[in-house]
Amino acid sequence: MASNQEEVTLLGVTRSPFVCRVHIALKLKGVEYKYVEESLFNKSDLLLKYNPVHKKVPVFVHNGKPIAESLLIVEYIDQTWTHNPILSSDPYQRALARFWSKFIDDKVVGVTSKAVFTVDEKEREKNTEEVLEALQFLENEIKDNKFFGGEEIGLVDIAAVFIPFWIPMLQEVAGLELLTSHKFPKLYKWSQELINHLVVKESLPPRDHVFAFIKRRYESLFISK
Amino acid sequence: MASNQEEVTLLGVTRSPFVCRVHIALKLKGVEYKYVEESLFNKSDLLLKYNPVHKKVPVFVHNGKPIAESLLIVEYIDQTWTHNPILSSDPYQRALARFWSKFIDDKVVGVTSKAVFTVDEKEREKNTEEVLEALQFLENEIKDNKFFGGEEIGLVDIAAVFIPFWIPMLQEVAGLELLTSHKFPKLYKWSQELINHLVVKESLPPRDHVFAFIKRRYESLFISK
Repeated sequence: MASNQEEVTLLGVTRSPFVCRVHIALKLKGVEYKYVEESLFNKSDLLLKYNPVHKKVPVFVHNGKPIAESLLIVEYIDQTWTHNPILSSDPYQRALARFWSKFIDDKVVGVTSKAVFTVDEKEREKNTEEVLEALQFLENEIKDNKFFGGEEIGLVDIAAVFIPFWIPMLQEVAGLELLTSHKFPKLYKWSQELINHLVVKESLPPRDHVFAFIKRRYESLFISK
Repeated sequence: MASNQEEVTLLGVTRSPFVCRVHIALKLKGVEYKYVEESLFNKSDLLLKYNPVHKKVPVFVHNGKPIAESLLIVEYIDQTWTHNPILSSDPYQRALARFWSKFIDDKVVGVTSKAVFTVDEKEREKNTEEVLEALQFLENEIKDNKFFGGEEIGLVDIAAVFIPFWIPMLQEVAGLELLTSHKFPKLYKWSQELINHLVVKESLPPRDHVFAFIKRRYESLFISK
């Protein structure tokens, strides 16, 4: 359990969907924390000290103890500040939430980037197909629930924040059709609910900032060297 | 909590290190279960029904409810049968155990297979380097502890069963040097402790069976088509 004298720090980069997950979890719990912006092109000593294995953000530091990997951080936050639960107390529901969160990492987030940031048309097509197949699984899974977590947002919704906020920008930049109300009506409806959730809204990075980064990265693919 | 009237089934293939993890967890807890051997070349209706997303083993079925992904299954088993704990009750220790288990999946298991099952020498070298780097992290992490879990085996030891049992066969077949007492004295010592642990011993597949499979797969790389 958390005491009153907490030192809570999050190392992140603003544009990262993984960092955004941690912001959401902390704000859901009402935990006060210090946010430190990192540069992935010039990694700080703090980042290298706290995540010597992967040297990636987010890193969460609680009273001097570091944790890496966004989903593990969210689970830790949920276990440490136990009000407004993010995970169910039922072991089976927990297993399912972890399954779909991992699914989103393995089949949606990375694959979407591969579909967007490539000059190889075959590679793009293959990965686009794979993302659409994954989104179809999520469309079937959300059913008519407000959130994956039910009436309140849970681990899967937090893991999936990439879908309503990042995917629309990525598909716009690359001219792809991934998340549309036509293809995935239920998932699209969920995506609007999520992005308008008060806590999620205040946890998202500025759209212009992220869009500019994505656009620059995409355009740099087509600059001959 | 578990009741007395349990239906516990594990779908697996004998040679899989991921399936072995579930055997270890169930035997640690003393849970009786039915084991069903699957064929990955001719997947059963049961497997397709219970794991429609990935269509992979292991699948664990508890009173009709399926769970996929070996690490999630082990956590579920630990939460359902709470004696002989596999994970600490401390949130920070849990986060660390999950971190290293995921590290083993991401940086050891898959990468070792890539180092072994390739005809491309550069690919082999690159992946061998990566495995050695990962094993060095584990060497530093085990320190002088008997197990990653301390005096008793825990989640990381279970996740890492690939290292003492599968890696020696893989390196023998491919003529690589990965886990040696010279390179990684502490990890090697741990590997001997783990493989001689009574519960682990009775959970391992027959060595000859696994070795023959690895050899066949390796040799098939060099058969021209």
